[in-house]
Amino acid sequence: MIYLDNCATTRPLKSVIDAMTTALQEDFSNPSSLHQFGYAVSKKKEAIRESIKDYFNCRSGELYFTSGGTESNNTAIRSAIENKGAGKNVVTTNIEHPSILNVIKASEMELRQVAIDETGHIAFENLMDAIDGDTVLVSLFHVNNELGSINPVEEWVPKIKAAYPTVKVHVDGVQAVGKLVVDFDAIGCDTYSFSGHKFHGPKGIGGLLVKKSVKPFIYGGGQEMGMRSGTENIPGIYGLGAAFDALKEEDIALDEAEARMDHLRAAIETIDAISINTTAPASPYILNVSLADTRGEVLLHMLEEKEIYISTSSACSSHRTGKNPVLTALGLSDNFAEGTIRLCLSRETTSEECDEFVVALKEAVETIRSIMRR
Amino acid sequence: MIYLDNCATTRPLKSVIDAMTTALQEDFSNPSSLHQFGYAVSKKKEAIRESIKDYFNCRSGELYFTSGGTESNNTAIRSAIENKGAGKNVVTTNIEHPSILNVIKASEMELRQVAIDETGHIAFENLMDAIDGDTVLVSLFHVNNELGSINPVEEWVPKIKAAYPTVKVHVDGVQAVGKLVVDFDAIGCDTYSFSGHKFHGPKGIGGLLVKKSVKPFIYGGGQEMGMRSGTENIPGIYGLGAAFDALKEEDIALDEAEARMDHLRAAIETIDAISINTTAPASPYILNVSLADTRGEVLLHMLEEKEIYISTSSACSSHRTGKNPVLTALGLSDNFAEGTIRLCLSRETTSEECDEFVVALKEAVETIRSIMRR
Repeated sequence: MIYLDNCATTRPLKSVIDAMTTALQEDFSNPSSLHQFGYAVSKKKEAIRESIKDYFNCRSGELYFTSGGTESNNTAIRSAIENKGAGKNVVTTNIEHPSILNVIKASEMELRQVAIDETGHIAFENLMDAIDGDTVLVSLFHVNNELGSINPVEEWVPKIKAAYPTVKVHVDGVQAVGKLVVDFDAIGCDTYSFSGHKFHGPKGIGGLLVKKSVKPFIYGGGQEMGMRSGTENIPGIYGLGAAFDALKEEDIALDEAEARMDHLRAAIETIDAISINTTAPASPYILNVSLADTRGEVLLHMLEEKEIYISTSSACSSHRTGKNPVLTALGLSDNFAEGTIRLCLSRETTSEECDEFVVALKEAVETIRSIMRR
Repeated sequence: MIYLDNCATTRPLKSVIDAMTTALQEDFSNPSSLHQFGYAVSKKKEAIRESIKDYFNCRSGELYFTSGGTESNNTAIRSAIENKGAGKNVVTTNIEHPSILNVIKASEMELRQVAIDETGHIAFENLMDAIDGDTVLVSLFHVNNELGSINPVEEWVPKIKAAYPTVKVHVDGVQAVGKLVVDFDAIGCDTYSFSGHKFHGPKGIGGLLVKKSVKPFIYGGGQEMGMRSGTENIPGIYGLGAAFDALKEEDIALDEAEARMDHLRAAIETIDAISINTTAPASPYILNVSLADTRGEVLLHMLEEKEIYISTSSACSSHRTGKNPVLTALGLSDNFAEGTIRLCLSRETTSEECDEFVVALKEAVETIRSIMRR
């Protein structure tokens, strides 16, 4: 199998599975239980929390465990909106994940979406122009899930905060964590979200880093310091801890990731009538490309025959109908847009796999073009 | 280890851990991915959903997977409240779980709590008296988490619906599933919640059975038919499926559970100055008792020395301060109330373990009384 759909989800590490098995087999108590068996698990949970906070250099804030990136984004945005005071609008981009956009749309806030330029990036001036005295929240992706574009939040957030000290800033870090260095205190945002299964941890667990307390989203027994009730997902938390341990040990290895991406990019550029939609600054793990006279979905199904797995767009919207707004914003013609695929690498992807994939892709492209160009 | 804290959480079955390991090692794709690797997992997820609906005889409704009982309760209650129309109040009992009470308290609804009588039960007349034309929602536990009292919801819900057809009825089944036969269609409620880790499934996964569609609580990519966004917790869902498979195979075995509970009750009644707070109709898995001239917390810590784990009250409120309102409602004197413990059995508990526990409890009670009665 050549798995190039790592933006959708990743293969859990062996150490992650082992940690979860320990939680399930041995440490199955409820951490809220008063007895020693409960307390021992509670202590391990808190050690994992501290270790993750340390990974993010989160000295000024707190980490809450959630059921994943979507819940983290919902919690951050709803908290900001419910504490809106006299505020009236939320500023974000036009290529955010649905877990950002749809929760804003479900509120009564005015939604202001700053549009990307033809390189797939937000111009900072445009962002600042959209913010005003009525802005409650600015919500920014760190790494975009379809193009890989990076928003330089370490640079932007302090400037936003300097100009509008009361505006809350949320950063959706779901596609950034494990791929870029993330320094929560240096960014200076109010909330930062992540999801375990995007960097070889388990599904069903994520986190929200918060500078100051947020409004609870799920009410109940008062777990997670009252912020997120419900019996803690201990197997998930143990697995998440193991995924962060691996990140700490291996470091981010940006050079390696960039070399691997350069290798893939050079190989794929040998295919003619191709548009590389991912432009720097971008994650070295994501490559979005469009192949004229093809169909993304057909390429995907031709490649799956060889156990090569890619995507046409983000899994979260893979069943959407109609034009992809991201591709429209890039100014792609329909002929290119319809032949768009997204390649998402991981730390586990090898250059050999990239080569093998490009050979198979070329073959598939030739086959489909021989039909479509008839 | 003698584990008698099964209301807080249970030991996951081996088949549950195996199913989760399969999800983590092999079926790690994102079920929303368009390729075959994603679709295969999506198909298994849907087969599990159908199997669970079948277990509950849920032919008229749908099952949504959630992160657990607390999220299920929050979703059901918020949906009812947000669709309130001209309604003004929510009727429930005074011994509900905090995931019921605190979400109502966080709303602007009037909260009407019907009080239990001195047997720990709700009188149906009192419940009906509390409901009126302004009632939006009636929320009832199926099995109470502290006393084990059963609300006969199969009998009550049709009567409530007959008298007030537009009132929504939610049943919190977290302590009932796996312990009582639950027939969703026969109950006729609008929503019914459960949690995997309460019946030997994993933490971090639960479900909400719904008769008609509810308002989404978590917004995003539109998973779970748009009702609950976020990448599905596939390891959790596989584990939950295995827990239900075990329930289907073993059946509820109510007779066995009742015989085991009768055995424990007979043994524990030989201790003097004891009040048995659990009264029929009650779950045959929960026994709440108060021992005069003791302290529940001290008993708990004395027993943990022998690797016997019990609780003083529900884990979700074990860190609460002040008097336990459930015990106050039963009319217990402080001298009894302070010596309250909760014993929660499971299908795995043996009569021998019950005997060994009672011997250890007697010893602990004698020790502490010898000090307190000085």
